[in-house]
Amino acid sequence: MNRIGKLYFRYGTMGSAKTAMLLTTAYNFEERGMSYICFKPVVDTRDKKNVIRSRIGIERECRWIYKETDLYAEIRDIFEKTLDLPQWILIDEAQFLSAGQVDQLARTVDDFGINVICYGLRTDFRSHLFEGSRRLFEIADTIDEVKSTCSCGRKTIVNARIDSKGDIITEGEQVEIGGNDRYMSVCRKCWTNKRIERMSRDRLPFESE
Amino acid sequence: MNRIGKLYFRYGTMGSAKTAMLLTTAYNFEERGMSYICFKPVVDTRDKKNVIRSRIGIERECRWIYKETDLYAEIRDIFEKTLDLPQWILIDEAQFLSAGQVDQLARTVDDFGINVICYGLRTDFRSHLFEGSRRLFEIADTIDEVKSTCSCGRKTIVNARIDSKGDIITEGEQVEIGGNDRYMSVCRKCWTNKRIERMSRDRLPFESE
Amino acid sequence: MNRIGKLYFRYGTMGSAKTAMLLTTAYNFEERGMSYICFKPVVDTRDKKNVIRSRIGIERECRWIYKETDLYAEIRDIFEKTLDLPQWILIDEAQFLSAGQVDQLARTVDDFGINVICYGLRTDFRSHLFEGSRRLFEIADTIDEVKSTCSCGRKTIVNARIDSKGDIITEGEQVEIGGNDRYMSVCRKCWTNKRIERMSRDRLPFESE
Amino acid sequence: MNRIGKLYFRYGTMGSAKTAMLLTTAYNFEERGMSYICFKPVVDTRDKKNVIRSRIGIERECRWIYKETDLYAEIRDIFEKTLDLPQWILIDEAQFLSAGQVDQLARTVDDFGINVICYGLRTDFRSHLFEGSRRLFEIADTIDEVKSTCSCGRKTIVNARIDSKGDIITEGEQVEIGGNDRYMSVCRKCWTNKRIERMSRDRLPFESE
Repeated sequence: MNRIGKLYFRYGTMGSAKTAMLLTTAYNFEERGMSYICFKPVVDTRDKKNVIRSRIGIERECRWIYKETDLYAEIRDIFEKTLDLPQWILIDEAQFLSAGQVDQLARTVDDFGINVICYGLRTDFRSHLFEGSRRLFEIADTIDEVKSTCSCGRKTIVNARIDSKGDIITEGEQVEIGGNDRYMSVCRKCWTNKRIERMSRDRLPFESE
Repeated sequence: MNRIGKLYFRYGTMGSAKTAMLLTTAYNFEERGMSYICFKPVVDTRDKKNVIRSRIGIERECRWIYKETDLYAEIRDIFEKTLDLPQWILIDEAQFLSAGQVDQLARTVDDFGINVICYGLRTDFRSHLFEGSRRLFEIADTIDEVKSTCSCGRKTIVNARIDSKGDIITEGEQVEIGGNDRYMSVCRKCWTNKRIERMSRDRLPFESE
Repeated sequence: MNRIGKLYFRYGTMGSAKTAMLLTTAYNFEERGMSYICFKPVVDTRDKKNVIRSRIGIERECRWIYKETDLYAEIRDIFEKTLDLPQWILIDEAQFLSAGQVDQLARTVDDFGINVICYGLRTDFRSHLFEGSRRLFEIADTIDEVKSTCSCGRKTIVNARIDSKGDIITEGEQVEIGGNDRYMSVCRKCWTNKRIERMSRDRLPFESE
Repeated sequence: MNRIGKLYFRYGTMGSAKTAMLLTTAYNFEERGMSYICFKPVVDTRDKKNVIRSRIGIERECRWIYKETDLYAEIRDIFEKTLDLPQWILIDEAQFLSAGQVDQLARTVDDFGINVICYGLRTDFRSHLFEGSRRLFEIADTIDEVKSTCSCGRKTIVNARIDSKGDIITEGEQVEIGGNDRYMSVCRKCWTNKRIERMSRDRLPFESE
């Protein structure tokens, strides 16, 4: 095959409209008659309907990626069945891919000339890379930021995990399903300040706020 | 005022989802409780409802910009009435701003520390800059491309005007309201090839295709 | 030919190290055994030696571009004589190209698959696009900023012209050869403030500063 | 302090002229009278002279960063002694920073409003992030690629390690000092193909080439 494809990583914090961008891109492909497939890693098994949905009110069907899915084999199978390759592959929540699955995507790009755009978080609530994000930073052809703004005006960098009292948590599992914690994307300075604030409070439990 | 604002120009061809990006950005501001105002130049007076609407199915209210609107004065007036300044200003179809209005926006950014994001076309159907785009390329703080893909796989650069027979037109008014022409965004190579194809046909009218 | 080339525009203010970037890029091509040619518009006929030279202390030979040079024909001639095409073309001071010469470069990219990188100023001392910059903003495949910093910390946007008294001038020829004026790249806010300062002084000549 | 700083990561493969960019930036700061300090991690203790030197033929003095250096403390000390803070800090070979040192730089940015630009490799010869690169991808404010071109025309992604026979090696220490191996930056596709080529040869040792 002669086409030249690229592996893109578009990273951002929670609420930076990555999914809206993915769906808008899909819509554009439809308008121009370009073929594409959407994929999304299964994280929460409570999900029933295989769709990618944005809070702005739009959605598209997708294929699930399971822990054991071989993405290279799956795309090659689509090709063998339909005798046609999609021109574009769009992946939501790409931080949840395994390193091996990112490598499979890279081989898909290099062998078939398909373009693959991965949208995902950069880091978890402790500011550590996810496995999928790490591998994408290592081997993606093009890395772009989907920016959003902290309430202080700076760019958001961290997805802070907030407990039921509104405090920033820095310990726990990387992904917590069905829990009560919430997330808030903040800039690095606000994140540091709030952790310092919390720590000083924790060290002085007899002091009322 | 101590805030530091920026004047952004996000340019792209028709159908590159600039308006969807604007509306997604507006949605994000709402979610984070950040104040913003949308503006749009009036081009076609047949427009009745003051909204910015994307083909993906979302819309937001906007203020109109008329030929004689002084954007600096208008934003200062909002400030004087509400004693509050919006943090962000979003402008759709910014290619239709006058050079003077872009200068007013720059002063708004520099004097009030407001951030202004202008979404607009780069060039018209003859590949010439619009007045608003020209001034934005001259003085914007940050210039970003909103990319989309030609059916040949390359990036779209030109908004080709197509007549009723499907041929590319390269003469006529910059903006044609209520006409029958359509537009198609194509890469530079496809645009050149199609014009050459058309020209050779025009020169040889006795040859059947 | 099957290669896919691109037309790049890397714009910046004076002193943003555009020429140093060009020469560093040329050095890299040499190290990897990749063929390239440097070009530069002749502006000042007092230039004798055909070199591109950076203030950091490095230089490379170049071909001159005259007002009447047809860049497409020149590169095609090189091909016909050597039976080989350069893989890259590097152009310094691209703001001084004519619109037609930029179009010739675009055709070179599209017909021969060569990559062309144009380094140049965005605007003149009145913040208006140069002819070459305007055409590059209109049709370049990729537009990147070469950033530099104003003494106030913001990004430089304007190449201010300074007269012998240290005042910002906003009238005169776009290019002044052999004159005594100097240039200083400043951010938009500093530029506006200094012009206002000068204007108020000019209006009140009887007031001492 | 009221200044707003940023932590930049400019990553690229070997030979992409990162050091030349750093030195060009330093030169520009000198021309504008802006204060800066250069730092570089000590890797090879055989280095005697504390300079950052580019193959294009320019160099600047630097301070060494040792494994135990606390960069936050060091910069604060400079401030206490000189009662002045540098406006910019430039770091070469930033992939060799420890994660803790990157965090110290982030605090320097956030507490003192200094700008820090880190130039470094993205990944090692096995395409895995270095410790410093990983932490920079996690928390940098702005991530930019310094691009260079593989001999096949695609963008380089991997720093391949080459043994004395010219074969690509994929096992060994991350950093090898004083060894005989060489490095070659290649695109992902060439890297994969060459490893496949080598593996098939290694599996068939009885076949002559």
